[in-house]
Amino acid sequence: MPDTKPILLTGASGNLGRMLTKELSAAGYTLRLTDIVPFPDELPKGASFVKADLTDSLAIVRQAEGCGTILHFGGVSVERPFEEVAGPNLHGLYHIYEAARMFGARVVFASSNHSIGFHERPQGNAAKLDADCAFRPDGYYGLSKVYGELMGRLYWDKHGVENVNIRIGSCFPKPINKRMLATWLSYPDLARLIARTIEAERVGHCVVWGASKNPDSFWAEDHRDRLGWAPQDTAEDFRAEVGHIVSDDAVEERYQGGGYTSIEYSRKGGFSPRDQFDLE
Amino acid sequence: MPDTKPILLTGASGNLGRMLTKELSAAGYTLRLTDIVPFPDELPKGASFVKADLTDSLAIVRQAEGCGTILHFGGVSVERPFEEVAGPNLHGLYHIYEAARMFGARVVFASSNHSIGFHERPQGNAAKLDADCAFRPDGYYGLSKVYGELMGRLYWDKHGVENVNIRIGSCFPKPINKRMLATWLSYPDLARLIARTIEAERVGHCVVWGASKNPDSFWAEDHRDRLGWAPQDTAEDFRAEVGHIVSDDAVEERYQGGGYTSIEYSRKGGFSPRDQFDLE
Amino acid sequence: MPDTKPILLTGASGNLGRMLTKELSAAGYTLRLTDIVPFPDELPKGASFVKADLTDSLAIVRQAEGCGTILHFGGVSVERPFEEVAGPNLHGLYHIYEAARMFGARVVFASSNHSIGFHERPQGNAAKLDADCAFRPDGYYGLSKVYGELMGRLYWDKHGVENVNIRIGSCFPKPINKRMLATWLSYPDLARLIARTIEAERVGHCVVWGASKNPDSFWAEDHRDRLGWAPQDTAEDFRAEVGHIVSDDAVEERYQGGGYTSIEYSRKGGFSPRDQFDLE
Amino acid sequence: MPDTKPILLTGASGNLGRMLTKELSAAGYTLRLTDIVPFPDELPKGASFVKADLTDSLAIVRQAEGCGTILHFGGVSVERPFEEVAGPNLHGLYHIYEAARMFGARVVFASSNHSIGFHERPQGNAAKLDADCAFRPDGYYGLSKVYGELMGRLYWDKHGVENVNIRIGSCFPKPINKRMLATWLSYPDLARLIARTIEAERVGHCVVWGASKNPDSFWAEDHRDRLGWAPQDTAEDFRAEVGHIVSDDAVEERYQGGGYTSIEYSRKGGFSPRDQFDLE
Amino acid sequence: MPDTKPILLTGASGNLGRMLTKELSAAGYTLRLTDIVPFPDELPKGASFVKADLTDSLAIVRQAEGCGTILHFGGVSVERPFEEVAGPNLHGLYHIYEAARMFGARVVFASSNHSIGFHERPQGNAAKLDADCAFRPDGYYGLSKVYGELMGRLYWDKHGVENVNIRIGSCFPKPINKRMLATWLSYPDLARLIARTIEAERVGHCVVWGASKNPDSFWAEDHRDRLGWAPQDTAEDFRAEVGHIVSDDAVEERYQGGGYTSIEYSRKGGFSPRDQFDLE
Amino acid sequence: MPDTKPILLTGASGNLGRMLTKELSAAGYTLRLTDIVPFPDELPKGASFVKADLTDSLAIVRQAEGCGTILHFGGVSVERPFEEVAGPNLHGLYHIYEAARMFGARVVFASSNHSIGFHERPQGNAAKLDADCAFRPDGYYGLSKVYGELMGRLYWDKHGVENVNIRIGSCFPKPINKRMLATWLSYPDLARLIARTIEAERVGHCVVWGASKNPDSFWAEDHRDRLGWAPQDTAEDFRAEVGHIVSDDAVEERYQGGGYTSIEYSRKGGFSPRDQFDLE
Repeated sequence: MPDTKPILLTGASGNLGRMLTKELSAAGYTLRLTDIVPFPDELPKGASFVKADLTDSLAIVRQAEGCGTILHFGGVSVERPFEEVAGPNLHGLYHIYEAARMFGARVVFASSNHSIGFHERPQGNAAKLDADCAFRPDGYYGLSKVYGELMGRLYWDKHGVENVNIRIGSCFPKPINKRMLATWLSYPDLARLIARTIEAERVGHCVVWGASKNPDSFWAEDHRDRLGWAPQDTAEDFRAEVGHIVSDDAVEERYQGGGYTSIEYSRKGGFSPRDQFDLE
Repeated sequence: MPDTKPILLTGASGNLGRMLTKELSAAGYTLRLTDIVPFPDELPKGASFVKADLTDSLAIVRQAEGCGTILHFGGVSVERPFEEVAGPNLHGLYHIYEAARMFGARVVFASSNHSIGFHERPQGNAAKLDADCAFRPDGYYGLSKVYGELMGRLYWDKHGVENVNIRIGSCFPKPINKRMLATWLSYPDLARLIARTIEAERVGHCVVWGASKNPDSFWAEDHRDRLGWAPQDTAEDFRAEVGHIVSDDAVEERYQGGGYTSIEYSRKGGFSPRDQFDLE
Repeated sequence: MPDTKPILLTGASGNLGRMLTKELSAAGYTLRLTDIVPFPDELPKGASFVKADLTDSLAIVRQAEGCGTILHFGGVSVERPFEEVAGPNLHGLYHIYEAARMFGARVVFASSNHSIGFHERPQGNAAKLDADCAFRPDGYYGLSKVYGELMGRLYWDKHGVENVNIRIGSCFPKPINKRMLATWLSYPDLARLIARTIEAERVGHCVVWGASKNPDSFWAEDHRDRLGWAPQDTAEDFRAEVGHIVSDDAVEERYQGGGYTSIEYSRKGGFSPRDQFDLE
Repeated sequence: MPDTKPILLTGASGNLGRMLTKELSAAGYTLRLTDIVPFPDELPKGASFVKADLTDSLAIVRQAEGCGTILHFGGVSVERPFEEVAGPNLHGLYHIYEAARMFGARVVFASSNHSIGFHERPQGNAAKLDADCAFRPDGYYGLSKVYGELMGRLYWDKHGVENVNIRIGSCFPKPINKRMLATWLSYPDLARLIARTIEAERVGHCVVWGASKNPDSFWAEDHRDRLGWAPQDTAEDFRAEVGHIVSDDAVEERYQGGGYTSIEYSRKGGFSPRDQFDLE
Repeated sequence: MPDTKPILLTGASGNLGRMLTKELSAAGYTLRLTDIVPFPDELPKGASFVKADLTDSLAIVRQAEGCGTILHFGGVSVERPFEEVAGPNLHGLYHIYEAARMFGARVVFASSNHSIGFHERPQGNAAKLDADCAFRPDGYYGLSKVYGELMGRLYWDKHGVENVNIRIGSCFPKPINKRMLATWLSYPDLARLIARTIEAERVGHCVVWGASKNPDSFWAEDHRDRLGWAPQDTAEDFRAEVGHIVSDDAVEERYQGGGYTSIEYSRKGGFSPRDQFDLE
Repeated sequence: MPDTKPILLTGASGNLGRMLTKELSAAGYTLRLTDIVPFPDELPKGASFVKADLTDSLAIVRQAEGCGTILHFGGVSVERPFEEVAGPNLHGLYHIYEAARMFGARVVFASSNHSIGFHERPQGNAAKLDADCAFRPDGYYGLSKVYGELMGRLYWDKHGVENVNIRIGSCFPKPINKRMLATWLSYPDLARLIARTIEAERVGHCVVWGASKNPDSFWAEDHRDRLGWAPQDTAEDFRAEVGHIVSDDAVEERYQGGGYTSIEYSRKGGFSPRDQFDLE
């Protein structure tokens, strides 16, 4: 039985935002949607959409008024030059937390594996990473996600604002290369996870690996028990189809962050419009 | 025998900057000083000063041209509202690292114990913190220091920019309360540390606790061996004088970050002009 | 016989601007058109168009050079968040009046019924509103229109800049609901009114209700005699067609401003792209 | 017995702000003070001061958190060019009202006689002005005060935010010219009025003439009965001393707004630093 | 044999930029392309494209890292209001030269005949202009080109940055009116010229008229000998086709700058979207 | 007999501005003074002062209303980084010329020898420079002066705005080194020159060397005959006192611009606060 306060979903017009809008509305939640670009779908009954920029502090605060949960999926979601990342992902993130503090809301933050992308992929029986591993951001985007996780840490320690930080691997309809056999998060697994972040009684500051039940996963322990969530899907079903698809860049294949760790992306200021895969 | 390339010192007009200017000039280093406020002292022979704002990217890059080391002591150095911290400490920090990358300089970053200030102070025989402990920032200032340390991690991993991150405890002429029996860093110890960060052959990304040889220290292992540095002074000499000076705020006395962890400071947006102690 | 000085029309690319461009050009006036978006129609002979932002002071002043009349239809023309309204409707309005003062032009200002939208609709034989009624803005848009009217009052009192303030009801090709049986202003009535605001010898600071000869009108006395204008069309012709179309929101139906008075619009920051009616 | 919620006082470092700080603290109110310049006096016990700019929306909202009343004395308080007035007095005013709406606070707004300054001074037995008279602003400052009063009207009509608008005449230690025999408001009368605006049970949107019990007053009816306030002091006591001090500018002496109505002030963009009298 | 360092081409998405991209790639140069709008063509092998704004200093510096030549074709390339020209053509130009200085690159600057457009066209046997003629800019655009040429003069005199300034006449697939029989520069002639600016051993600060071998040319001596370039095409081939196409504006036909010298363009703030010819 | 329209003097609070204020007021001119810092002296009778920033376009236009002459001495008057020079000296210069065009005023522009500072000083019988010599700016400041002179050229060619450009050498109470035996302009000579720029009947676009009757002058022909001005003072009187004072920097002594041509000043972003001589 859903929480009766409205839920604010930022980044609603993105792929994950649109999927969550559909799923959460169907589950009976009252949604307030916001994004910097118009919402492309038919609005579900009971949902409202307001176009707003994360850097516009008062607009964000206004949307959060009276909400019980803020699902923060907005901001820059791929590697871009610092100057583009800073506004929404550093300044905007702060606006989200101030709003949560003022109105007593819980924050669910779409963090990313790119906050730890410079860890090497585990080989053979090598240990997998636990959620308390060292941060190893692989770019300005990943670094902004670290910043977001630790802003959550600060607001919990200092103000009692609860927050769940989901280090999303690769959340797509299906995996498209070998790396995603490890990092894939299915849409239904994400939707079920989000439902739990809303409903769980007490979460404090917690961190969860956002991946399905993949045997190849790079990741081990986290705080999912606090949420009562476990993934049900697996990338394994796609091994035959995509298990042979690898990059010819040795750096990409060595590190968990994949292509984001490449220095060439860095000079070019991030992915070009033609680099369409692995956006989270 | 000093490095022959000039050394850029940001925040030169602050207390630590002024002390380092004197010490490093005396040791024969060629200094380029910069700060957002004028340099208050007589310029040492061979040193030059240029007033510049850390948020002015090209001005910072221009000062760093041809430098071998950037001693980054500039930016907001106390708890302040996010909006004031973000410009110099997030945007400005990025300018420092881009400049270092372009010109192959090493970065020495004045980080702070406030990056881990929400760890409790060790009681009795409790374990002290190692440098790889979890980040527990105690405010926007502390969070900006985490950001700076991990920007260093990123630039080392991705671009090979070396950096030393000094988590300064309380760097003052002498300790002024009980907490500083643990956190005090003497001026001579800092000056010797900085000389080592310039001269050490290879540092990679390293983290050092910036405290003197204090028996009450909260902190244990770090990467000082890479630098060949060990503190020589101790706060112990001041126990009789200041060991009884404690706050009546239980939160302050419980956490390593001291007053910065107090929620009241947060609402007020940081220290008022009358809160003059414990600035680092 | 038209005034021989050019006439500046702001907001030329909007519905009313386009209609006025056609009518005034046909009547022989030399038009300078400006808008923040391109002019979508073929330019009439003798008219010129310059794209300009109302917040760019010098661009506005430059367009007004040598003009005898400024028809100010530009700016935000629907309810929007304060931050969006303020630039064009407060700052931009000031640029218009400074330009008028410098070049001795008369200002004709597209004000709105939303400057008095929180007055209740008159029931039965209740008195209708005169133009000197109290301001009762129904949103940030309406409040900006009050600001514009009183800026006109100020510039007349202090600098002798003449101005006509037209509180437009609902200016559309035809009425589309019951409320508009009261508030509708036909295109030809507006065009005739504007011609009079240009030609009238002396207008001082005057206020006119912008509605056709509607029996249901909410409004009574104003300064139209100074202009020599009287509406000729009437919404009555459309009663059968639209007289039954009412909102199910009691607040909307009670106040003159209609939907703008609804608190829900306020939270959403104004009309969504799908709320297409009643834009003035 | 004072309200138990804190009271936010903006413009605390100005003359009226300092006086109110002293009086309200003495009366037992918990004050949060803010201003764009430091507070020059010793902080009363229980009061806190935070430096903030009215144009910084989130800083203002943060100060207002949990307050029951906002005494809004901040912003530009004399005639200045539009560009200087707009930030604090238009944008900042909006931030005050959004904060009040969010936290359910009442707003007490330091409006001004300059919102009606272009009314002529009553001669002989001519009628005095009631609070519902037409607005006749005498400059950008006065126009910003109209804007503030009607923002209050809007927030009461739409959101139920209560507000008291005090059209302050000339609030100084004592009158200094003939005009102030009409417009003077004594410090004690203001302090008593403010206490009533805090304590009065229900005020809605109300307007009060801010003048002492002056026989020469230009003003008559207002809503003071809702507050239970009546002035006790009178400018009459100073007639012998200042009754002969008049300007040699006929315009100044004709209108209620005095020197603000002069066109020369307008070109010069307001009062010069040497025009030190009649600041409200 | 091409220079082995990469070449930065700004304004890559414009007509000349696209042509040069094709020609220089085919000639074996490694190109870094940048523009404020996306590159519309298939990227040649070995070329990379990064979207960047000339006013973003660090982005420009980053693109120039390691380049041997900067072909600066970016910025506003037609007459526009000062406010639009200033950002890219004054501020952006400075960023280009700072980048060139830092990385030791040569600058090739797309200057324009509009830097001298207010010289009269030579009649009969009148002398043609040499490159050291007085500057006579015909608008804000032309003035920005003067600024660029003399920034080059300054950087050569002070910092030894070499630069070639090409005063482009009318660079189009073919001439389209009588004026272009004098000013036309064929695409192949431009491509050959650019190749020489890259390959020439020593250029210092030099100025070249960018026109083909046109008998009607307005221009005589320049520094082309330093480059070893001579045009091979001629507008003469098009005389029959376009020699009769003249403007009915006497001012346009009198001055070298053609339509740019018209005062009417000035009021309108430059060419309207329908004025499609003579863009350089 | 002075012009009866007011005269606008920008930069009024600088050394030259203050001297001119005194002299021109004494000569009976009505002055409007403006500067970004307060005017430090007693205002002469009939003069008014308004604080304004050259980058605030409307404020500048407003001050110029109704003026017959604009004496433009405002802006950055020494070598500074581009970012500091650009606002007042490029953008602000444009505001001056737009204001002059609108109100039909003549512009008198304080240009500088630094617009040609990279010409070598004439040795022996070598030819001196005429005013039509090539521009050779010696820094961002000098380049901004070139920009200003050619903006004047443009506004005269296109809009008929008259302007006098004075390439000031070194305008101080007396010369202080050997270079100033060539470049010195006495205060009385400047004051007499300015009076002529106001009174001369027709000036078009003209350029004058701003130096006294110095035998060592670097400069020869200019347009002073149009003004009817000739200097009366000479630096020769100070030869014994300062003729031996030279820099030990060979570059400085070689070029006309003196210290401004030094590359070291360039890196430091201009003169430090201690470099107090040769400011014009």
